[in-house]
Order: sequence, then structure tokens, then C-alpha cells
Amino acid sequence: MHGSKHIKTIEWIDGAVRLVDQTRLPWELVFKDVSDHRELADSIRRLEVRGAPAIGVAGAMGVALAATGSGAGSMDELRSDIQAAAELLTSTRPTAVNLRWAIDRSLHVANDVSISSKDELRRLLIDEALAIYEEDRELSRMIGRHGADLIADGDGVLTHCNAGGLATAEYGTALAIIYTASEEGKRIHVYADETRPLLQGARLTAWELMRHGIDVTLLCDSAAASVMARGWVNEVIVGADRIARNGDVANKIGTFPLALAAHRHGIPFYVAAPYSTLDPALSTGTDIPIEERSAEEITVIGGLRVAPDSVKVFNPAFDVTPAALVTAIITDLGVFRPPYGPSLLAKNSPSDA
Amino acid sequence: MHGSKHIKTIEWIDGAVRLVDQTRLPWELVFKDVSDHRELADSIRRLEVRGAPAIGVAGAMGVALAATGSGAGSMDELRSDIQAAAELLTSTRPTAVNLRWAIDRSLHVANDVSISSKDELRRLLIDEALAIYEEDRELSRMIGRHGADLIADGDGVLTHCNAGGLATAEYGTALAIIYTASEEGKRIHVYADETRPLLQGARLTAWELMRHGIDVTLLCDSAAASVMARGWVNEVIVGADRIARNGDVANKIGTFPLALAAHRHGIPFYVAAPYSTLDPALSTGTDIPIEERSAEEITVIGGLRVAPDSVKVFNPAFDVTPAALVTAIITDLGVFRPPYGPSLLAKNSPSDA
Repeated sequence: MHGSKHIKTIEWIDGAVRLVDQTRLPWELVFKDVSDHRELADSIRRLEVRGAPAIGVAGAMGVALAATGSGAGSMDELRSDIQAAAELLTSTRPTAVNLRWAIDRSLHVANDVSISSKDELRRLLIDEALAIYEEDRELSRMIGRHGADLIADGDGVLTHCNAGGLATAEYGTALAIIYTASEEGKRIHVYADETRPLLQGARLTAWELMRHGIDVTLLCDSAAASVMARGWVNEVIVGADRIARNGDVANKIGTFPLALAAHRHGIPFYVAAPYSTLDPALSTGTDIPIEERSAEEITVIGGLRVAPDSVKVFNPAFDVTPAALVTAIITDLGVFRPPYGPSLLAKNSPSDA
Repeated sequence: MHGSKHIKTIEWIDGAVRLVDQTRLPWELVFKDVSDHRELADSIRRLEVRGAPAIGVAGAMGVALAATGSGAGSMDELRSDIQAAAELLTSTRPTAVNLRWAIDRSLHVANDVSISSKDELRRLLIDEALAIYEEDRELSRMIGRHGADLIADGDGVLTHCNAGGLATAEYGTALAIIYTASEEGKRIHVYADETRPLLQGARLTAWELMRHGIDVTLLCDSAAASVMARGWVNEVIVGADRIARNGDVANKIGTFPLALAAHRHGIPFYVAAPYSTLDPALSTGTDIPIEERSAEEITVIGGLRVAPDSVKVFNPAFDVTPAALVTAIITDLGVFRPPYGPSLLAKNSPSDA
């Protein structure tokens, strides 16, 4: 029912990537066409396209752009160009595992020795990117369906950052659950943390929820615990950038204190993410690399400097929420509950699947 | 040793109030002279002067301004003008109890029936405001002395909002402890939350600590829990706007989640405030009125709108931290520890006095 309002965050059109420039929201909805993989790497770095699933799609499309744009004379040269592009694209954001996962899928195609024609390889890399894109659209809907059962009519749901349509190819992770519950006729009130420093909650989440006619109230990140203390929140739902085998979750900075506040108030704390967000190589969250971004993200807002010149700044983009604070992890494959180690790895048998 | 760098946040000079316009920091240090109590009420409301102890001083000076500015023909008229001014000034900020406490002290003078001359009453109200001002300077130093013993050489101290010289007549509450420990030769590293929505941490705390040569790192409010998880914080010290008899503490929004994070990591959580911040009329923090401020504080930063037009906003200026999360309350009268009810009320025998 809200289908027409869902924006295609990223698409492959006529051999180029068309993306919503999210740094321009909520002021204007600008689509940007990118035909060079280096330019796409810059777009990822500048957060013009952001959200773990969406940058996974962007990564695979970037590899396809590198292949189609390469003037390599031989298969070896083409594979070498693709490898270099994959490394460049992977380096743009170190925390979200979906980026590396999607690029690795494309590299697996690129390194298939049975492919002997450059044009065939280029075509197959485009196909792989389109497959990842279509899978992302579908798995968002699956996350929505699995999670919606956890939401009751009249619930207040608190979310952080943007785990919405703008963070995926189209439908979202945390917000997919809210869209699905809303489509089922449940009335939901969303509390959206503004999400400093880059205000994805204020700029993106409030914008996309209002566009869908879903009731939303914006608040400072530091007010979330007060909103919980007032009894207004029935569940917290956030996205994830990487999940360790034990269920520890890396997500946007500010997620961990939300989980502490939810725990304090006995409020379920749900993480919604594609199953590919699980990094089976990591046993716990302490091994997840945490991206640190520039001081200016904090000290300059809209061109105005808001802190003394030369002040020292610590700006980690993500934090790690211990598995013990996570009530359930809602994925396209089903809802996983503690103990996460065994349940997450036995991926064909999530608790409610 | 840092005496010369301490700014007089508010002073009574030549029959008028001179205050630092804190909305102009850190861009410029502007002193503003205010000679009308209604103008001073506006200054308090706009946070040109802010911080519970400082607005207490401002409130008493405002009553003095009303008395000196009144053209009342009789004592009754003068007392009536003073009463109206007191009500206007009290209404500017509902949460901080120091404002009401200071104004009540002035009203007690105004209502002393043994005073029969208008000029004498005006003079006594100025004297009362100056006494409150001098007491505030002295009690800041006492808070600093009582708290400094709790800080060790090399400690990392996390603070929120501005409980510094700018929040008091001169020396601070939470930051008075840091200044005193620093003067004792202890090396301290401060982590300053930026403190959305009005960024008092970025604009004021970072500015005044750097001015004093104290090592400070600025972070988003939502990163504080991560800084604690990394083991960088030895204690959290914050100010207070009102303390209930049971030790529940109202302070700047974002204090409660800090206390939860400190509790999680076994880090002492200290509240530093004048003893007058205790409101003996309130048995618990649930009775403390929480000021809600305008949506624009969140949706507009430096003239730039950062959220969709007409988005709903919840903007409480304060939250309440339950006493169970407060390790100690550091006042001018000494350090109080749980159980707070008996210790806070037996004010002449704090635990270390």
C-alpha cells in the first residue's frame, strides 16, 4: 500500500549507478548518476549512499562499473583492474561487513577461470550486482514480515540512525518492520533519535517515515532513555553493520547506550539486519574494526563551527552492543534468539522459522 | 594558579548586571549589561546566562534590579512590584531549584516588615544579591576542594553539559573539582560530551577547559558509553539542577543514560552541586518538573534546518537520574553518600565532613 512512496535508493540504469544523494536530504531529493567506480567510492566515503545493505549493493555495482570501464587488453589485465577496484571500494567503510561480502561475491565471479571472454565477464558482474540488488529488495521484505509479528497495534517503537528504505535498496531493515506492521493495519508511533553527528535520524528517518504517513517524533539521542522511563516505548528496533558469531552487534554510535536503557526498563531490544550482516569470521564484537571519522563531523554543523578551533575530538562512527542486551536478531532467514552462537550459525533453523 | 583565567560569568556593576552572553561562545566573549529585570528574565530564558547556580545569582540580582527600577510611591507598591518581578523571574526556568531558592531569599528580605524605607529595602536587596554571589564563588571553591580528593593523578574524567565556571558565578561545580585537582598538580584528561541540543559541552566546556590548559576531548553524547567501554574513564562528574530528598538528581538531558553506562562499567558517577540544589520539599525525583523547550532547538542548527518541516519533536531539557546510580553527591558542605535520605537531610554531618 505504501509501495509508490518507496524510493529506489540505488539502481543500475543504462550502464551507470543512479543513487539518491543522501547528504542533500531532507532539503531536496537529488538523484546522482555515477559511471566511474572511483567516483562511486567517493560517494560511499562521503555517505551520499549509506546504510550497510545499500553500500553492499553499491560495492557490487562499483565492481561492475570497474569492469565495464576498464580498457584492459587481456583477461589478466581486466581481472587485475577489477581486483584493484574491489580493494578501493572495500577500503571506503571498514565496519559494515555487507560491503566486503557483496564485493567478495563479485570477485568470486571475476575469478571464475571458466570465463574466458572480457565481455562475458563484464556481463556476469553486472548480473551479479543486479542479483545482489534484487536479493536486497526481497530480503528487506522478509525482514519486515518476520519482525512485524513482534509489533502490536498501538506500540511506540524507538529507532536510531536510519535503518530504512534509504539504508537498503528500497524497503529497509528496522523500518521495513514498521512499514510491514503499518501495512497490516497496526497503528505505530515511532520515536526517532536524531543520531549525531550526521543526523541521519533527523534528516532521513523522520523524512521517510513522514513520507509514508507514519507518526514520528524526533528527539535528541540523549533523550531516548527519558522517553523509555516515561513508558512510551514498547520496543527498540535498530539496524546493524556487523554481527559477530556470539551475537555482539556493531551499529551506529549510540546504539549501545540505547540497549543499556532498554535493558534498564525491561524493553525488548531488537536488531534487524540481513543474514549477510553476520560475520562468521569473528567470534565476538571486540574484533570488529570501528571506523573513526573526521573531527569536522562534530565540530562543524551546516558550515557553522560549534566548538573551539583545534579542540581534540573522538568520533567513532559505530559502537558494539553486547549480545546479552539483544533480545532478538531479526533477519531475512527468521528471528534468532539467544544463545546466538549456535542459533546464528545453524542458519537454516532460526527459532521461529 | 588559574585565577586570572576565571571569567566572572555574572557581576553587579554600577547598579546593573553584567553577564557573559553565553549564546555567543565560543565565537566571541561578549559582556552584556542589563539594567531591567524583564530584560534579565529574557536573558535567562534565552540561556544567555545559564547553569543552575549562575541563574540563582541572576534571579537575586533581577529582584534587586526590579526594586531599584521601581517608581513605586509607597512601600506596599514597591513590595508589590518586587513580588511581580520575582514571579516573572521564577517562571523563566522551572527545573533548577537554585533560581527559586535565591529569589525566595530576596523575597524574605523584601517582606521583612521591620524595613520601612524604600531606599533601605533597595539597598538590602542589592546586599542580598551580592551575598548570594559571594557565597556562590566561595561554595564553588568548597565543592572543588571536597571533590578533588576523589580524583587521582592521570585520571580520565567524563562530564556532560557545562558545570563549569560559566554555570556559576565564577569557578564551577563539576569543573571546580577538575580545576582544583589540576591546581594540586594532578594531570587530568577530560572527555566532554557535546550535549545536544544546545551544545554547551562543545561551545562552553571545551572552551573553558582549553582556556585553562586542561586536556579535553570532545565527543558526541552517544559516544560516551563507548569511551567508558574502552576503559578511558575513571569517573563521571556532572552538575545538578535539582536534587530530591532521596538523592534522585535532575540534570541536563543525557545525564541519566551516562549514569546507566557508568553503572554498567563500574565507574563512579558523581554529582557536584551546591547544597542549595537539594529541594527538601520533594521526596523523589518523579516530582521534579521537567522543562520542555522549543522544537527549533533540535530542528535548526546555526540557522540551518536539519529536519523535515513540521516534524513532531520532544525536547525535554532535563532528565532524572535515580539515586541508586549516584555514587556520591559532592557539595560545598561535604560529600554525601547513600543512603541519601538521612545523610542529605542531616546537612551538618556529611559522610566525610
